[in-house]
Amino acid sequence: MKLPLLSDALDLGDVREAARRIAGRVRKTPVLHLDALDAISGVELYLKAENMQRIGAFKARGAMHAVGLLTVVERARGVVTFSSGNHAQAVALAARAFGTKAYIVMPTDAPEVKVRGVAALGGEITFAGTTSDERRDAAIVLAEATGARMIPPFDDANVVLGQATATLELCEEVFERTGARLDAVVVPVGGGGLVAGACIVASAYGARVFGIEPDTSDALAQSLAAGHRVTIAPSNTIADGLKPVQVGELNFALARAHRVTSVRVSDAQIGRAFSTLLLHAKTLVEPSGATGAAAVFERMLPPECRRVGVILSGGNVSSDAVRALLASHHAHALPAEISVDALDP
Amino acid sequence: MKLPLLSDALDLGDVREAARRIAGRVRKTPVLHLDALDAISGVELYLKAENMQRIGAFKARGAMHAVGLLTVVERARGVVTFSSGNHAQAVALAARAFGTKAYIVMPTDAPEVKVRGVAALGGEITFAGTTSDERRDAAIVLAEATGARMIPPFDDANVVLGQATATLELCEEVFERTGARLDAVVVPVGGGGLVAGACIVASAYGARVFGIEPDTSDALAQSLAAGHRVTIAPSNTIADGLKPVQVGELNFALARAHRVTSVRVSDAQIGRAFSTLLLHAKTLVEPSGATGAAAVFERMLPPECRRVGVILSGGNVSSDAVRALLASHHAHALPAEISVDALDP
Repeated sequence: MKLPLLSDALDLGDVREAARRIAGRVRKTPVLHLDALDAISGVELYLKAENMQRIGAFKARGAMHAVGLLTVVERARGVVTFSSGNHAQAVALAARAFGTKAYIVMPTDAPEVKVRGVAALGGEITFAGTTSDERRDAAIVLAEATGARMIPPFDDANVVLGQATATLELCEEVFERTGARLDAVVVPVGGGGLVAGACIVASAYGARVFGIEPDTSDALAQSLAAGHRVTIAPSNTIADGLKPVQVGELNFALARAHRVTSVRVSDAQIGRAFSTLLLHAKTLVEPSGATGAAAVFERMLPPECRRVGVILSGGNVSSDAVRALLASHHAHALPAEISVDALDP
Repeated sequence: MKLPLLSDALDLGDVREAARRIAGRVRKTPVLHLDALDAISGVELYLKAENMQRIGAFKARGAMHAVGLLTVVERARGVVTFSSGNHAQAVALAARAFGTKAYIVMPTDAPEVKVRGVAALGGEITFAGTTSDERRDAAIVLAEATGARMIPPFDDANVVLGQATATLELCEEVFERTGARLDAVVVPVGGGGLVAGACIVASAYGARVFGIEPDTSDALAQSLAAGHRVTIAPSNTIADGLKPVQVGELNFALARAHRVTSVRVSDAQIGRAFSTLLLHAKTLVEPSGATGAAAVFERMLPPECRRVGVILSGGNVSSDAVRALLASHHAHALPAEISVDALDP
């Protein structure tokens, strides 16, 4: 039983230290700024392209940070995790980078492309059932049998600090390029690792944080409304990375303490954002990763948020899924007139 | 009749001056570097994402530079061009940025999306026939009637100097990030504006230049082989931006003087590169813009080229075209094992 961290125990200094630790092991991803998206969203919009991060998602940051902090003794035993999504590849990547072994528990029906991705990074895959519970139980058994350290997908201070480095880079780069602060940082919410990290950074820089969830999978919104963590029913959404039925404990504490504004978007809005990002920003984002942008394109932020940073959290999507999404969702149309103001450099 | 420039009349200093002139008016686009693409190509690969440039193509650079150099008297009369592709939008953008008028001659069968793009930037569109000759003739008539200055798509020193700034940024950013020079700069070739600019810059930095053409539309390859400019028959290729039947005069002189290596790729190779860039680099590139990357993915460069820069020249492609391309062309498969060496920052 871990002693829970207080939500104010983590600060910008911790994030800066995490950034130093993982420098050269994760990418400093580009921050995109495009006329077309400013015209569509009505704000000055900066996109942090974590879809171009190693393994195609911000998850590389948290895993790299957490695995990098293991002791020599722990490294000799390896790490284990039970995510079926981007976190699985992130842990495999981090384990290889630090010369330790990764045990990854995946569902028996995991997509071939994700299995290949984990295997290519040297992860040792165990298949266990098709539900999250079955995978977690198998991972616990594995951890006990091998002594490997569990690297949880979101409810962990070191994972949160790693994810926070994405928001740090976003805030710093926008300031370097424009000399101005962001009014808002907008991120997708699943288990809450990214939003918790954003809270630590944004509060230090005076930016509001918006956490965006699919309207059918809104554990954070319901928890913030209730004042305590709520477990929701499993549901379907095209944002398949945002389906945890509960946000993490530390994550919720941070979101609550920092007054995250929760926003819900529909699958239709997410799909439209996917197509808009692809055709107008020329960037491939998985539906989960497009959720933050969806809220901005639909103008769901308050009007005082003029300079907005959005984290495009991942870009792992198959060819067939791209085709299906484009067939079902039209991009936002460009306004009839585009302004051509001078640019940030 | 213009006195032709000697091919050594343009140097790196001219490119630096062009870069200063257009700073803040075009974007400094990201340089992408992804593990997956290094693994596929077998080289250290840097992608200059001009698909994320204003109007979605590097053409914004040359047009902005050429239009920005007009005198006050010339600006009062406006500019005219007859491209049906990205150059049309680039000239409309530049004209608006400098407060002058753009007359754009487009084919009667121009895609709605391109017409809208030019119109949204305030370009005054004249429709004229469906062939390049009809458009050029109409543009000449317009220029005479209005006194507007012609901004040619590639055969022009100021346009070439503007395009050269893309290669300048690429070489400089790779050096800043890695402390090392590029061995090769690889660019698509249509009329030769981009490759001519690459020559001026790369020769100053000791990088070889590779000009990549569709194998059915290889005016540069044939011209270099013949030792003089060759006019080829019009042909079909999915790289619809690379179909000029002749490279520019200045462009050819520069390519020849700087010993450009010409490489031909098939539509199948271009399509495969399109899918690979989209699914592995998460970036949407039009087939013309994927031509340089195709040569690198197919390992058509000599083995001494270890650190390679490729310009992704544009990203304007419709939703339907994306779907058709993905349906017809599989991405390169990831190797069974991916290395996780330390990264450039």
